[in-house]
Formats: sequence, structure tokens, C-alpha cells
Amino acid sequence: MSTRYYTASSLDGFIADPEATLAWLTSRAIDTDGPMGYTELIAGVGAVVMGSTTYEWVVEHEDGRWPYDIPSWVLTHRELPTVEGDVRFSAGPVAQVHAEMTEAAAGGDLWVVGGGDVAGQFADAGLLDEVWVSYAPVALGSGAPLLPRHLELHLLEVARNGDFACARWEVVR
Amino acid sequence: MSTRYYTASSLDGFIADPEATLAWLTSRAIDTDGPMGYTELIAGVGAVVMGSTTYEWVVEHEDGRWPYDIPSWVLTHRELPTVEGDVRFSAGPVAQVHAEMTEAAAGGDLWVVGGGDVAGQFADAGLLDEVWVSYAPVALGSGAPLLPRHLELHLLEVARNGDFACARWEVVR
Repeated sequence: MSTRYYTASSLDGFIADPEATLAWLTSRAIDTDGPMGYTELIAGVGAVVMGSTTYEWVVEHEDGRWPYDIPSWVLTHRELPTVEGDVRFSAGPVAQVHAEMTEAAAGGDLWVVGGGDVAGQFADAGLLDEVWVSYAPVALGSGAPLLPRHLELHLLEVARNGDFACARWEVVR
Repeated sequence: MSTRYYTASSLDGFIADPEATLAWLTSRAIDTDGPMGYTELIAGVGAVVMGSTTYEWVVEHEDGRWPYDIPSWVLTHRELPTVEGDVRFSAGPVAQVHAEMTEAAAGGDLWVVGGGDVAGQFADAGLLDEVWVSYAPVALGSGAPLLPRHLELHLLEVARNGDFACARWEVVR
């Protein structure tokens, strides 16, 4: 069982541009079934977790349809609109959320969808195992940071998938 | 003849930490002769250019010995300490520096050593051809930005070299 932060990023380390649009990302080619693609990631995942900004973005862009058929957690201190689906809101702490997710995932991996600070909170608690980044062929110059922490890692894998440079690291503890 | 920004970076897009130390970088393994290594880069390079912060860092860390035996430009508006070597100070504009470098390089490539804003200035002027990044296995969370611009690129190559995830992009114009 592994807890993984899997995300796309600009090549200069931003996971969203200042306007929270994703055209810089969705305009790129990627093979879902290719190396470090979504199929490889999601196959082993038993539960997902994300922050409130990511949640709101998903709800807005999926027209209120929840895209995950596995137990999902949203870390938030705010009241958020609900959707149909197995979505559980929690104010944390992440260690408790991680324990709940682990039980719900029944041996599956945990996917930290984003944002960077949520991944950072799991790392702070010593509960982040891997970081998977797909770098899009664009520099953004500003936006939401990929991983706002000082964190040591170990490179596991590098691949090209379509327009993306993909890398996978293990968190060093 | 190609103008290339070749640099190491943290995996979250910083080329220097806030204290301008490089332990996060120099502690990593890389094969100079390996894919996208220094040997491959420098073989075709006929002139280098960097900003004043990079220059000062090189001078300090090389004990005043200039490490390049090819014509070198430093973009600066300040008075800087000189070193023994072919180092030319210029207040720009980059188009003029690029023209001088191209002549001096005699058919060789131009290497933009850093920092990110110098590379950005060459891109702004339409004079940057490629970006080569070696991502170290560490997140820094803050520091000097890799490439503080919105810039479209096209992925050319991905490789692993030691502890580094390396990628090479062509600037889209």
C-alpha cells in the first residue's frame, strides 16, 4: 500500500495557472494507457484525497458528476457544495484521514490528487510515499506551487508520454 | 547554431534555494558523459552568457578561476569584480549581446547559464531555441525560479542521468 501524489505540472513547477484555467494542460497529448499514465496510476488506487480548491475545480469541470467510483476525501475547513458520490469532508488532521482512507481502500493505494499543500501535509506527517509528476511542455512563471516544501526524494523512473516528461520519485524518510 | 538554456532545477522548479546554497544539487550523482550531461552540452558551445547573480556565484565558488575557456558574457547594470578570463560585461539589450555572442561563437551554440530571468529575456526577444533541465530529486518549496515567463515549448527528449530526471524542450515561436 502506497500513498502517491500524482499530478501534472508546468515544467517550472506550477500545477495551476493564476487564473485556475487548465488550457495549458488539456491542450497537450497524453496516452492514458502509456507510461506513468492515468490507467497505471488508478489501477491500484483504493481511495483519493484532495483539498477544497481541487474539489471545487473538479465539481465545476465535471458538471457536478463525481468522477471517482472509490471512496474520496476532501480536506477542508469550509462548507462545500455536495455531489452525488462517496465524498467525505474532513477538517483533518491528515494522519486521521490517512487512517480512514487506508481502511476504506482495503489494501489499495491512496492517491493525493492535489493541491501541493495537501501533498505537503501528508509529507509533513511522514505519510507520503511517492511523487509522480507529468511535466507539460510549458512554463507558466506563476501559479499554484507543485510541492511547497523542502523534501528529499529518490528518483525511481523517467518516461516520455506524448507531450509530457514524466518522473516518479520515492519520498526519502 | 542554437541558443540553449541548460540548467539544473529542483523538481518543483527552483534553480537556487533562498540561501543560494547548492548542497541540494551538488550532493547528487550525475554522469557528466551521460545523456544530456555537461559533455554533450558543452561540446557544441561557442559562447556563454549569464546574469550577475550567477556570475558572482561562479566567481565565489571557483575561487576566482574562470571555468570557461570560451567567450563569456555577463548581463549586468552593476560594477562587478573581474576575473582572469574572456569575460565581457554588458548592460544589454540581449539582442545585441546575442549578435556579439553569435559572432564570437563562430558557428557554435550559445549557452544561457542562468538565471531564469536571463533565459526569459532571450525568450522575450525570440532568441531562445532550447531549454534543457536536469531535475534534482528534491523539492525546495521556494527560491529562484527556473523560468519566470509564460512560454510554450515542445518536448524533444527525456532521459535519466544518475539521480536526475532530464528533459529537453524546443521553444515554440
